[in-house]
Amino acid sequence: MSARILTADRPTGKLHLGHYVGSLTNRLSFQDQYQQYVMIADVQALTDYWEDPDLIIKSIYEVGLDYLSVGLDPLKTTFFVQSQIPQLFELTTYFSNLVSKSRLERNPTIKAELEQKSFGSVPMGFFSYPISQAADITLFKATLVPVGEDQQPLLELTNEIVRKFNHLYQTGCLLECQAVLNQRCSRLIGICGQHKASKSLGNAIFLSDPLPIVKEKVFQMYTDPNHIRVSDPGKVEGNVVFAYLDAFHPNSQEVVQWKQEYEKGGLGDVYLKNILYKDLTDLLEPIQERRQRFTVKDVKEILYQGCSVARTVANTAIQEVRQAMKILSFE
Amino acid sequence: MSARILTADRPTGKLHLGHYVGSLTNRLSFQDQYQQYVMIADVQALTDYWEDPDLIIKSIYEVGLDYLSVGLDPLKTTFFVQSQIPQLFELTTYFSNLVSKSRLERNPTIKAELEQKSFGSVPMGFFSYPISQAADITLFKATLVPVGEDQQPLLELTNEIVRKFNHLYQTGCLLECQAVLNQRCSRLIGICGQHKASKSLGNAIFLSDPLPIVKEKVFQMYTDPNHIRVSDPGKVEGNVVFAYLDAFHPNSQEVVQWKQEYEKGGLGDVYLKNILYKDLTDLLEPIQERRQRFTVKDVKEILYQGCSVARTVANTAIQEVRQAMKILSFE
Repeated sequence: MSARILTADRPTGKLHLGHYVGSLTNRLSFQDQYQQYVMIADVQALTDYWEDPDLIIKSIYEVGLDYLSVGLDPLKTTFFVQSQIPQLFELTTYFSNLVSKSRLERNPTIKAELEQKSFGSVPMGFFSYPISQAADITLFKATLVPVGEDQQPLLELTNEIVRKFNHLYQTGCLLECQAVLNQRCSRLIGICGQHKASKSLGNAIFLSDPLPIVKEKVFQMYTDPNHIRVSDPGKVEGNVVFAYLDAFHPNSQEVVQWKQEYEKGGLGDVYLKNILYKDLTDLLEPIQERRQRFTVKDVKEILYQGCSVARTVANTAIQEVRQAMKILSFE
Repeated sequence: MSARILTADRPTGKLHLGHYVGSLTNRLSFQDQYQQYVMIADVQALTDYWEDPDLIIKSIYEVGLDYLSVGLDPLKTTFFVQSQIPQLFELTTYFSNLVSKSRLERNPTIKAELEQKSFGSVPMGFFSYPISQAADITLFKATLVPVGEDQQPLLELTNEIVRKFNHLYQTGCLLECQAVLNQRCSRLIGICGQHKASKSLGNAIFLSDPLPIVKEKVFQMYTDPNHIRVSDPGKVEGNVVFAYLDAFHPNSQEVVQWKQEYEKGGLGDVYLKNILYKDLTDLLEPIQERRQRFTVKDVKEILYQGCSVARTVANTAIQEVRQAMKILSFE
């Protein structure tokens, strides 16, 4: 049987082009190679959006439609919602005994994220989410986990927990996992040119953005503020249009040539933005067409089925965990 | 309907006289006044005994037998085991978003306990147990919680969470609770005279100790090391025998008189220890006799029934919580 691969999205908005290049395209190929599980992480979303449950609900369906629209196939990929798998809460609790507070405080991923957030004092849910993530991965016995480089410390922690648990309870029931690093640009810059594309920063092009909006966003993209006349030499570095052409233009040779011309002077932003807009139209049209074929009801049905499969897998795993830990059963 | 009261014991050994005066006698009267739930907190026990599951298993049955032996009645009291109520893990997770790390760091109960423990760095499970305890109390809608004075900060935290949750999710589904402080001596000193009676310190008289062992322990009790001859004046303060006579001798007037005589000189330790041994025999004989009437199989059956009742209550409560938080259901 092929290896199991687990990825997740937090339902805190619709998916955008950053997700497309960062994870969705990979998932399209993974679903033919692996047993793929995709989790909509509503419980994790609560760790920083606990005040906005309406956003989370709405986003679960939007994200589901996004998955289907890019061609993820419920016959090949199991989609499920984190809150529907009670075994995850339980495993997280058991793992909490195996991780020290100072170990989490030292975690570079958490450290970096806390710097970005504006928590007065970090809520415990957010602080301890790496433990919950370790439970997600191991409960589903995922041995492959696609992550960005900045998230590797989380997988190291997961494997530390696995080794500690297996050693302590003399079992082999938990499996270590391996990072699958993204080959292509895993972090798409936002149209502002300052931060990566992100729902919360409002600098992303969503998969479901109507094409006129896409055009507007393309023409708002940050380029080189000193490139005033077409004939002026322009900077490629930090130029969002080139970052997107790198990610989406089908002919990379052409992009190389345009970069050279742009740097010399003689190539206009409008010219390039029109090309990019056409590329994005070619990409998004079939996605948006496919999206029209599905309703929220379809998403509900698919998630219902997926959650049922995931619960069965989770239940078998938690029984093994409980057996190893010698937890009694009074059921 | 009468108020619901919740108490718990950690299954990390058999119950002793400290439990008897500190909680069991109260529970005997509570079971006639309230809807009483008694939880065997195996999950909490794992927060510092995660390396010793065998002790926990064994202790669940011992503690169950201890309950029955003192006269707690499964027809009046619902006994259940924490690990069997998956909703507790879930509610704990939701509460984690409402409590900051620094709030826990400031908690005086945790601070004091950490000073006693020899954790290198505190495990997350132990550090965050007050959140889990808040979930225990509120999931069962217990409005009365018997605690020692040192545990009151934990109930304050629980009520803080309740108010925050109810306000944030515009619900009244969680109830605030009230401490029921122990009238009589809630902390029985150990026979060593140094620390409170505790399983882990080996300074306790267990409810199931055979009477010859009880006698041995009574005669090992710390009195006044300077009270060498019967005629010497002796110290009452710090004298374990008097602490136990205060707790167990049926005639408190007599104890007052003995204290005066002892302080003057003329009353021997052996005399008092024999009286105490008789008192404890009178107390323990019927308890141990009742214990003989029950088997581990009876305990299993009672816990099985209790867990089933508790799960039903917990399930109704978690549905209310989920509804308030607008968590979707795909079941």
